[in-house]
Amino acid sequence: MSEADNFADVVITQSADEAIRELQDAEGFLLWDIFNPVIRNNPLPPKLEWIHIAGVGVDAVLSSDIASSEIVVTNTRGVFEYPIAEYVLGLLLMVAKDFRNTIKFQHAKEWKRREAFLLRGQTVVLIGPGAIGLEIFNLLNAVGVNVIAVGRRQAMNDPLFGRRHSMEELEYLLPEADAVILSLPLTSETAKVMNTTRFSQMKPGSSFVNIGRGGLVDEDALLDALKDGRIRSALLDVFAVEPLPKGHPFWSMDQVFVSPHMSADLHGWRVHVVARFIENLERWVTGKPLENVVDKTSRFS
Amino acid sequence: MSEADNFADVVITQSADEAIRELQDAEGFLLWDIFNPVIRNNPLPPKLEWIHIAGVGVDAVLSSDIASSEIVVTNTRGVFEYPIAEYVLGLLLMVAKDFRNTIKFQHAKEWKRREAFLLRGQTVVLIGPGAIGLEIFNLLNAVGVNVIAVGRRQAMNDPLFGRRHSMEELEYLLPEADAVILSLPLTSETAKVMNTTRFSQMKPGSSFVNIGRGGLVDEDALLDALKDGRIRSALLDVFAVEPLPKGHPFWSMDQVFVSPHMSADLHGWRVHVVARFIENLERWVTGKPLENVVDKTSRFS
Repeated sequence: MSEADNFADVVITQSADEAIRELQDAEGFLLWDIFNPVIRNNPLPPKLEWIHIAGVGVDAVLSSDIASSEIVVTNTRGVFEYPIAEYVLGLLLMVAKDFRNTIKFQHAKEWKRREAFLLRGQTVVLIGPGAIGLEIFNLLNAVGVNVIAVGRRQAMNDPLFGRRHSMEELEYLLPEADAVILSLPLTSETAKVMNTTRFSQMKPGSSFVNIGRGGLVDEDALLDALKDGRIRSALLDVFAVEPLPKGHPFWSMDQVFVSPHMSADLHGWRVHVVARFIENLERWVTGKPLENVVDKTSRFS
Repeated sequence: MSEADNFADVVITQSADEAIRELQDAEGFLLWDIFNPVIRNNPLPPKLEWIHIAGVGVDAVLSSDIASSEIVVTNTRGVFEYPIAEYVLGLLLMVAKDFRNTIKFQHAKEWKRREAFLLRGQTVVLIGPGAIGLEIFNLLNAVGVNVIAVGRRQAMNDPLFGRRHSMEELEYLLPEADAVILSLPLTSETAKVMNTTRFSQMKPGSSFVNIGRGGLVDEDALLDALKDGRIRSALLDVFAVEPLPKGHPFWSMDQVFVSPHMSADLHGWRVHVVARFIENLERWVTGKPLENVVDKTSRFS
């Protein structure tokens, strides 16, 4: 095959209407804005063979139509996982060292020496042993945190996580955890997995971190758990509705850290995401198997 | 020796006057408030053989009179070092992930997605390769930071730090560092070691962390370096005057994190400090050599 045969016509669209029109002839589709509902809310484009997502979570694309179709869905791996893990470590340290109150006291010009917690030796329940969960697991272990991995399947000796616990065991694990970290994909199975029951099982004074999807959490239940003091801090990078609506009570709560879905975003991330897409595009054009193919039947390890 | 012989009369004093009076008969002295000048500002008590400090830094005690006397000075090791290292890691992550602006935007109920920096792969110059420096060195290395240790002596293959650089090399090292961490003891040799020249050598946009002593820094020079934007963030746990005076410009600067000398203080720290003192007291009463004896001739490795 000559180099001249290995090309793709690329059309960049700026609006949903334009995208819908262009998709009628498209065989491949790069979805840059991972929450754009253009695929989910419209009939399947007739010639579409491949959708590549400029992110990790595919919940905004993976309709039952797509899931049951022949369309191959690929996502972006190797760009966002480690940055998210560092972000989570930073969040846990911010809480352990009470930095937020230090900033508050600074604004009031008050010198208030206090006592902090050690993160080393704390127990963290990590729900979601996927690629992001693995980086979180490894980084927290590296700084002496006791991380308990929880996923769909139980395993005594997982090659990556060692002892893996099942979701059914949360009842016994949540009361032991100083922090709970949620890094699950959002599926019909995981929607509102953190509900009133699960929050009530958490250790009093513990922290809750969500870097997965807002839809994993019953936000009203979380609000109640924060108000009654069971959960000391909620560190949230994702919300059921994004941007978080102006009127939402989270905004004005000191015990909630409202992070605008940025845990994965480093300076320069776009370049790395495009590079991953280009690699797959070259494979696609030259007929090689695509990388980072999403298992459309199960997005929950 | 019977157990009954192994005892010490303990007198607890609440004021400097009381301490001065009681010190006239005292052979040993535990200084709980490590900044209390009762020893430094008064003639040496005639019978005093031993001073134990409830902290690491002995600068507030080590007058030239004490240094040239026979009095043994011991400090508290193994309690504060690792907590300080965790605190420093938290500070660096807070800056890398721009948490402070996130809190600011939250107060304004503004959803402002931004881009963060990765801490892994950053270069940090660590000035002060003592016991605290070692914990910082190891912890930052564990999370992928490239840490360059700088102290008085140079070494190609230090057993703890590997390549060690001398203070003379700062001129070449500071321009390469994303952050500079100061963990030196305060002596006549190290006073205002961070001055206008050294701040001007720092990389534009870098961070400066001080968990040593305020006296290590020319604070006016730091203020200038912050104002002209060379230093992006100063994360200060210690100040030339503590508590930081109400009128000090640091309080109202967003690029300064005013931490009230708490980097070492964990919940329960007093118990551990007392335990260390009791261990030494038992040694002293039973005539065994004291542990954690301070080298009064050189407090700067």
